Amino acid sequence: LNGISQDIITIALDAMGGDNAPVNDVAGAVKTVRETEHINIILVGQQDIVERELKKHSYNTSRISVHHCSEVIGMHESPAEALKKKPDSSIVIGTNLLKQKKADAFISAGNTGAVMAASLFILGRISNISRPTIGESFPTDEGVSIVFDVGANMDCKALHLLEFAVMGVVYANHMFNIPNPRVALLNVGEEKSKGNSLTFDAYRLLENSGLNFIGNLEGRDVLRGKAEVIVCDGFTGNVILKFAESIPAVLKGKFMQYAKKNFLNKMWVGLIYKTLKKILKDFDYQNYGGVPLLGIKGITIIGHGSSSPLAIKNMCLKAELMFREKINNVIEEKIKDIKSYIQKSE
Amino acid sequence: LNGISQDIITIALDAMGGDNAPVNDVAGAVKTVRETEHINIILVGQQDIVERELKKHSYNTSRISVHHCSEVIGMHESPAEALKKKPDSSIVIGTNLLKQKKADAFISAGNTGAVMAASLFILGRISNISRPTIGESFPTDEGVSIVFDVGANMDCKALHLLEFAVMGVVYANHMFNIPNPRVALLNVGEEKSKGNSLTFDAYRLLENSGLNFIGNLEGRDVLRGKAEVIVCDGFTGNVILKFAESIPAVLKGKFMQYAKKNFLNKMWVGLIYKTLKKILKDFDYQNYGGVPLLGIKGITIIGHGSSSPLAIKNMCLKAELMFREKINNVIEEKIKDIKSYIQKSE
Repeated sequence: LNGISQDIITIALDAMGGDNAPVNDVAGAVKTVRETEHINIILVGQQDIVERELKKHSYNTSRISVHHCSEVIGMHESPAEALKKKPDSSIVIGTNLLKQKKADAFISAGNTGAVMAASLFILGRISNISRPTIGESFPTDEGVSIVFDVGANMDCKALHLLEFAVMGVVYANHMFNIPNPRVALLNVGEEKSKGNSLTFDAYRLLENSGLNFIGNLEGRDVLRGKAEVIVCDGFTGNVILKFAESIPAVLKGKFMQYAKKNFLNKMWVGLIYKTLKKILKDFDYQNYGGVPLLGIKGITIIGHGSSSPLAIKNMCLKAELMFREKINNVIEEKIKDIKSYIQKSE
Repeated sequence: LNGISQDIITIALDAMGGDNAPVNDVAGAVKTVRETEHINIILVGQQDIVERELKKHSYNTSRISVHHCSEVIGMHESPAEALKKKPDSSIVIGTNLLKQKKADAFISAGNTGAVMAASLFILGRISNISRPTIGESFPTDEGVSIVFDVGANMDCKALHLLEFAVMGVVYANHMFNIPNPRVALLNVGEEKSKGNSLTFDAYRLLENSGLNFIGNLEGRDVLRGKAEVIVCDGFTGNVILKFAESIPAVLKGKFMQYAKKNFLNKMWVGLIYKTLKKILKDFDYQNYGGVPLLGIKGITIIGHGSSSPLAIKNMCLKAELMFREKINNVIEEKIKDIKSYIQKSE
């Protein structure tokens, strides 16, 4: 963060979000103010419950405040309905704090769909972005590959994939310090003619976009570090992400099955278990600390329902970096440039 | 195969197909006639080359014959073009042997698209099947989950997914001896309302199909044995399959990286390497012996380009079982029943 202003930023944190609310949210807030210097937190939630939880911790009380709201949106409620029915919920109120510039970012481990919908309706989209996106980072031997979209957009058009690519490039560039991120299209073969009607159109758009587009990648390439930004429709991305997340448990299951066969196997597996756990940690995407919803006018980060206090703190750090890097301004400029570049070359 | 007629069946085998043609194809043919009793093989390919290769082996010469053809379709040729340009290729000629009832099945480790196209154009579709499909079996703790489609159909409609489900159920029933296979729709959430427009429509069709439909499964459930038949469009299925196939190499890479850190780690990884290899074998889908193209009037099995002689033999055994179980007749009956059931209940 050299040379960037180190003013205090204020993060609105959904205290009622996630499977362990408010315990993990409050512990995450405390961990953040203890371990950082420039982040203050507004915990958004039912005042009595949040304050009771806060009392269990010692921390600099001037850096965490509580903003009361009376309602909570459940993890499995229908987003659109919940937003209408619960205007005084932590997700709506937290997003409004961002809209009113009383907070610089909003973070929630709550109902993903509701957070996305609230951001979209209350904050609105960045100009020239028709579809906000969420991406997930897959660690590779080379560094990181970020797949956009992993679930915000089910039915996509080629233009949406172009927008994902632009937002992805800005994100990879500013958040991971990658100078000229390579962009690839997730597809079923390397050839330009492969795929479905979406990838057919998206290929043509991407190759004429001026982005560092390297062509198609297949499912087998996602973890191989061939591109920093991989774009696909949110249905495919979500299926892939959840499949990948299941790998550690599946492998543990296989090792256990192998161990059950005989005593020697059992001994072996016992011996290697710790090593295995270390190695499988890479697949544990949920500990990385949430994913931003890119393309909206504001910084919103969505965490897994199971987010630990560490994950909450990582989400706060991510929000701080996004804020200081002015990600949204850069996206707004870049998408304008790319769209006018494409129009000129047509 | 109790009680089923054990007449000799004849399999046309593409001797020019795959990365190691004709070496692995010929070795696979020899392995098959040596290790089975009721399969004879016609090797389809350039006579001099195939016979030269055959001479390296000893086998019952009355059970393997060579059917000459002058042309070969390369692994990366465009299927439609190749079929037009090369009417005397092993893929076209082998499929014609099936059409002319000179063979009971056709097997190829060659150009997948070309084999599919040849089957579709030369043999035609089973009545009431609009889209033939290929599926891949994923081993689970419970047994097997077969995903249809994994690459034959890029842009799908709900009706196609219903057809995949019907073919999948017949296949799981007759090839894996599963009495009433559970059918699931691959989706991004459990709720009926989740997903894209395709899964929205397909859910409604499947739940009223009379099949044993258990609802949506997510990416994380594919390897968990919750359903024997999982349907999705061929784009998503192909991306998932190739992602899964990459896991062993990715994990090996991670272990190697871990080993490089220090001597103790290196020793550990050395000790566990064999165990690890055994456990990762399950992800090695290409050794299972090819996938059938279901929904065409004939038995066609397509193998990986890298098919070993063992994989070729496994493909022959699969073809034999499909033949003896009269899979295509059963599919024809079942799809007729299901479609009339759906019409009646509408």
